[in-house]
Amino acid sequence: MEDLAYSAQRVVADLHELANFTSDENGAQRVAWTALWRKTRVWYRQKAESLGAEVTRDAAGNVWTKVAGESKEAVVIGSHLDCVPNGGWLDGCLGVLTGLEALRCYGESGQKPKKTLYVVDWADEEGARFGSSCQGSSAASGNLDVKSLMGRKDLNGVVFEKALEENDVDPAHMLEAQKQLAQKNLAAYLEFHIEQGPVLEQEGQAVACVYGAAGVERYAIEFSGQAAHAGSFPTKMRHDAFLAAAQAALDFRRIALKYDAVCTVGQASVAPDVVTIVPGKCRLSLDQRTIDPEDLEKMYQEAQTVASLAAAAEEVDVKWEKIYSVAPQLFDDHLIDLCKQAVKEETGVARTMYSGPLHDAVEMAKVVPTVMMFVMSENGLSHTKEENTPEPELKTGIRAFLRLIDKVVNQ
Amino acid sequence: MEDLAYSAQRVVADLHELANFTSDENGAQRVAWTALWRKTRVWYRQKAESLGAEVTRDAAGNVWTKVAGESKEAVVIGSHLDCVPNGGWLDGCLGVLTGLEALRCYGESGQKPKKTLYVVDWADEEGARFGSSCQGSSAASGNLDVKSLMGRKDLNGVVFEKALEENDVDPAHMLEAQKQLAQKNLAAYLEFHIEQGPVLEQEGQAVACVYGAAGVERYAIEFSGQAAHAGSFPTKMRHDAFLAAAQAALDFRRIALKYDAVCTVGQASVAPDVVTIVPGKCRLSLDQRTIDPEDLEKMYQEAQTVASLAAAAEEVDVKWEKIYSVAPQLFDDHLIDLCKQAVKEETGVARTMYSGPLHDAVEMAKVVPTVMMFVMSENGLSHTKEENTPEPELKTGIRAFLRLIDKVVNQ
Repeated sequence: MEDLAYSAQRVVADLHELANFTSDENGAQRVAWTALWRKTRVWYRQKAESLGAEVTRDAAGNVWTKVAGESKEAVVIGSHLDCVPNGGWLDGCLGVLTGLEALRCYGESGQKPKKTLYVVDWADEEGARFGSSCQGSSAASGNLDVKSLMGRKDLNGVVFEKALEENDVDPAHMLEAQKQLAQKNLAAYLEFHIEQGPVLEQEGQAVACVYGAAGVERYAIEFSGQAAHAGSFPTKMRHDAFLAAAQAALDFRRIALKYDAVCTVGQASVAPDVVTIVPGKCRLSLDQRTIDPEDLEKMYQEAQTVASLAAAAEEVDVKWEKIYSVAPQLFDDHLIDLCKQAVKEETGVARTMYSGPLHDAVEMAKVVPTVMMFVMSENGLSHTKEENTPEPELKTGIRAFLRLIDKVVNQ
Repeated sequence: MEDLAYSAQRVVADLHELANFTSDENGAQRVAWTALWRKTRVWYRQKAESLGAEVTRDAAGNVWTKVAGESKEAVVIGSHLDCVPNGGWLDGCLGVLTGLEALRCYGESGQKPKKTLYVVDWADEEGARFGSSCQGSSAASGNLDVKSLMGRKDLNGVVFEKALEENDVDPAHMLEAQKQLAQKNLAAYLEFHIEQGPVLEQEGQAVACVYGAAGVERYAIEFSGQAAHAGSFPTKMRHDAFLAAAQAALDFRRIALKYDAVCTVGQASVAPDVVTIVPGKCRLSLDQRTIDPEDLEKMYQEAQTVASLAAAAEEVDVKWEKIYSVAPQLFDDHLIDLCKQAVKEETGVARTMYSGPLHDAVEMAKVVPTVMMFVMSENGLSHTKEENTPEPELKTGIRAFLRLIDKVVNQ
């Protein structure tokens, strides 16, 4: 890994090559389990095999690229080639193609790496078609609830099982990926990703060591009051479900500020949704995230309290229904240290942060020592064709991550 | 009109007879321009004709029932037999059938009334199929915008013109109803309706004289911020369109309280409406009503101010689009006096109020001296099968309204 500048240039070239045949005027279209995603993977496989790497697929459809090392102890670099519809040119594929560059470097040097090196392209990180994020990695970690996916349909009515069969994955056997992972003797999992947020850009920092991922508590909240005629019901006699929800949403934000965390009301709807009728019902979604498990619990408790107070003030009812939750995940201390070193060597500052979005690394951290690295995102944008990292910062990130790989593989 | 108790009983009997053949398990189904509405009007016409009244239809499909008086100067009692889908047993038809009872009383007495007496059953007060309320009465007042209705479709794709032709109404000639009205030599318009709100019930008052109808200012308001990832965008860096809208909605209510009026946010939606995305857009409807034109104007100005402040606090944009507006309408002072007398004679209290909902009387007040009377609604409910007025209060209201007719016809 001596000429890091040259390496970074090759990764950027690969990214552009990929973007050229997988994007249209609306952005990248490498949606998992589609023809263009298969084409992406054929392109990737050919690149990997041309480097002399061994390419296999596990039972969940994850693609593993291997260069044997002096030791059977293995290090795995992972991310995903799939993207959301109308996505960006970096989300996921940056990590896979930087991993490929590491394999390329070892191949060119003619020297076996100390440890065996894998690059894994996880299947369906985005969950864009069937709503199940980190599908391939959670199959490999043993946490995928396959039953809950059976029979689920995409927007075109294609059933989950059928879509996977078209990609030679048998849902009944997906969880065998867990055993296959166990046989790989993995000592470390490394993931490189764009930040997808505005924090690093605002600080003028290109790269950060990511020491963990936020936990998530996600609920649907329904306020039930009394629908009433907008003309004939005096203000003080109303039980307006929307006003209760509005007050609660503002109070959720106060909780986020108190805990230096995030509380997002992303969905909101009222019923009957008629201009002349006071809303009898209002439904909100609430997504709360932070890295500290105790804070996350307190945030949820306080959200319930403020929602109940807001409901009581309008004399309406409120009900909570859990949609999803995942515990905060801290990464491995030793790998965090190495990652901070790599970031500092490249940028002069050992910036650390935790990830708000979920990543495959969260699944891997449950079974393998794990760390992540983020490179800054322009305007914090992702999941859109405007997603970008300016080339100087992008190359700084790639170089820092290749440094991290070198530290972990050769330590 | 000597035996008012007997008269009220006959009106209640007619209402039950009507409800029996026009309701199903979901409520009343006398929707304008449908087969069941036509059946309702055949039933009504037969009743009217059996009393010796003359029944005609004007160009807008309004049905006029006439008993000639000593003078050609005429008094008209109006309301509507149509209702919303799944409606109640009183909304509209109470007024028409109380009018019918007045005709019946004069027929039975064998004495001509001093003034000529009409009962009008306005066509399509509710606007349930084509969204245009008070259609028949606004055709008669000359204010119907027929062009805007041409080509409009109902939920089943039936075009407005076609639905009216099925009912022998030619849209091209509807506005001739204005001339036909002018030929009737009308001196007064009286309308009796359920309150459709909870005010009278709460006061323990059965009946009120209605001295006017609120004006309405109705807008769509769009807040535009920046959609962002719910995990990666720190709270303080967000431009959350929903939170701006939530603050504005709470502030609109403060305006309503300040002016003792109503401000209703009946519709609310966010985009992209995804649980993990901060809303980039939020659309609200705002319906403001009060009887004082200056207050109404101030309420609108203040609503714009608080929405702009809420938007500025979140650094989002806000745009207003007018949906509808109608000026407040005060009724005729002399008729209000007579109406207060009638209410006081029947209940001991000359309670007055203005109407928040619109009624055909608002159209008529533009061209004929007008007054309304309200009878209380149980729980303030209307436009639902639960709509009700307990029989004792209902009869009190009918008696009071028959008193008013007598005062106006024989004064």
